Amino acid sequence: MQPVRDRSAACPEAGQPDTRLDLGRILEARERISRVFRDTPQFDCPALGDVLGCDVVIKLETANPIRCFKGRGTEVVMARLAESGDPKLAVCASAGNLGQALAYSGGARGIGVTVVAATSANAAKIDRIRRLGAAVELVEGDIEDARRRARAIAAGDDALLVEDSENLDTCEGAGTIGLELVEEGDRIDTILLALGGGALATGVGHVLKCLSPATEVVCIQPGGAPAMALSWRARSVVTTDSTDTIADGVAGRFPIAAVLQDLLAVADHVPLVEEASIKAGMRLLHRHAGLVVEPSAALGVAAILEDPSRYRGKRVVTVICGSNVLPEAFSTWTGD
Amino acid sequence: MQPVRDRSAACPEAGQPDTRLDLGRILEARERISRVFRDTPQFDCPALGDVLGCDVVIKLETANPIRCFKGRGTEVVMARLAESGDPKLAVCASAGNLGQALAYSGGARGIGVTVVAATSANAAKIDRIRRLGAAVELVEGDIEDARRRARAIAAGDDALLVEDSENLDTCEGAGTIGLELVEEGDRIDTILLALGGGALATGVGHVLKCLSPATEVVCIQPGGAPAMALSWRARSVVTTDSTDTIADGVAGRFPIAAVLQDLLAVADHVPLVEEASIKAGMRLLHRHAGLVVEPSAALGVAAILEDPSRYRGKRVVTVICGSNVLPEAFSTWTGD
Repeated sequence: MQPVRDRSAACPEAGQPDTRLDLGRILEARERISRVFRDTPQFDCPALGDVLGCDVVIKLETANPIRCFKGRGTEVVMARLAESGDPKLAVCASAGNLGQALAYSGGARGIGVTVVAATSANAAKIDRIRRLGAAVELVEGDIEDARRRARAIAAGDDALLVEDSENLDTCEGAGTIGLELVEEGDRIDTILLALGGGALATGVGHVLKCLSPATEVVCIQPGGAPAMALSWRARSVVTTDSTDTIADGVAGRFPIAAVLQDLLAVADHVPLVEEASIKAGMRLLHRHAGLVVEPSAALGVAAILEDPSRYRGKRVVTVICGSNVLPEAFSTWTGD
Repeated sequence: MQPVRDRSAACPEAGQPDTRLDLGRILEARERISRVFRDTPQFDCPALGDVLGCDVVIKLETANPIRCFKGRGTEVVMARLAESGDPKLAVCASAGNLGQALAYSGGARGIGVTVVAATSANAAKIDRIRRLGAAVELVEGDIEDARRRARAIAAGDDALLVEDSENLDTCEGAGTIGLELVEEGDRIDTILLALGGGALATGVGHVLKCLSPATEVVCIQPGGAPAMALSWRARSVVTTDSTDTIADGVAGRFPIAAVLQDLLAVADHVPLVEEASIKAGMRLLHRHAGLVVEPSAALGVAAILEDPSRYRGKRVVTVICGSNVLPEAFSTWTGD
């Protein structure tokens, strides 16, 4: 399929799902993203497919300077901020990947960035945020505590607060992954998306529902951090008191209502998976695809492992959303 | 820089080095290569650069169904074979990666493939060649014994013998990596290339000498398999009795004279590195780039580790040419 350039030409018959997102804006967002984050590899992985009983397609979002997909969103955020002439500062709360991405996109445009992280966050990610030139502030507690502090900084410093998933640019930037997948032209029966705050799930989900409506959109959360999945099932926001998962990239407790509404419009199935399955998924991706991934990137394979009959014989895309994991943690979790 | 489409337009002032290769044919070769092997990620890796004391750019050739760069060459070989109407069979000797690549490209075009490998070859690679639909014949000895048997099969079956590096298509296919690097438009002070039979080194080297003549072309061999490096230094073919390296992908004993002549025309520096440096390189790529690579893909980093002052402060591209390594071997070699 040729690159999608115009919404009406691309899918004259298909409507858009009822979300805050817009296909036209996603097409426009793509033009603002550095090529280092775009047109990422997408390829069949027969060795992994043999083990899992389906045709596995890998969409690899880790081969870039920040080793995760979030640069797509922060590029859009910062490009628009640079154009607006508004505050030339941005702040976010992050377990690490969003912070790295915002630091990268800010640095590329001369925009100051402050990242607030929990003291419990992955040390390697925090270190890399600093090397990318951002200021880092550590707070006690978890990502929700960091979010509160980021809001306070934004208010005090007149900085742009970048709330992952709530900020539409982050969702629409992530949605460009969906454009690339659809443009390949091959049938996609199912797409597997890690579900945290919801930017990846709603962004890619929106594009697939527009341009490949027959594709089942599966969004996966760890059982140890199930707030958004429980909210999707209840059709209203459910919060949790704590999280307990190795998948730090998707471990939130307070789903955002607007994002939940978007998720309700695009997700077909929202399973919870066990920690053992995440670790097994990491192990299989290592052995059969030669990829070292962080836990959140193994949620898709974990979902297949827990419910193989659902995917049997289908062509299934799994988005490998991040590889920020220390060798010793990887080894501890997988035994490899 | 825009895509290079025409030799004279691309580099009106630069001549071509005196090799068997031709820039015009390399440009034409690109059109025959499946997109799954083309336009691979190329990105700065500041975390690795901080450790190595230079600006490291990674060119990643592993995010495809065969986890190595050799599909670029076999796509060109098999596309031309399919067009020629000549023998619809191909045979090669391979330690694994060429065999996988030829099996893939043959399978995509309905061309039967036989791969001859030494019984000592990497078992995971052999298994994957079979899964890609090729016939595999194992012979006692090393890759040179496998080569002899492949020649015999080709003669008996009227099959096309694909000799890596001797076959120009394999070199010119590999050369398309160089086109992509140059088209990015950023300065390249040095390019680091694994040196085995010579297809990668001469292919990419030829393109760089045409389009970026100021770039130093460094081709690296393990001290345990030094035949081509010794030949380059002697300016005539030097063979060895055996090889002793973990870098199975580059372990040959009998350099091909024509390929050596090409290498003499494009390589500026041909260091030998120790096994310990290769392992250290694998460890650093894992920790700082999140990549699990096979030993031959770590030769570039090994070269920097052994001679850091040569590269200090420069912008250095290292081509990550393969990731076909079993987790247990990786762990044994790196301790990770």
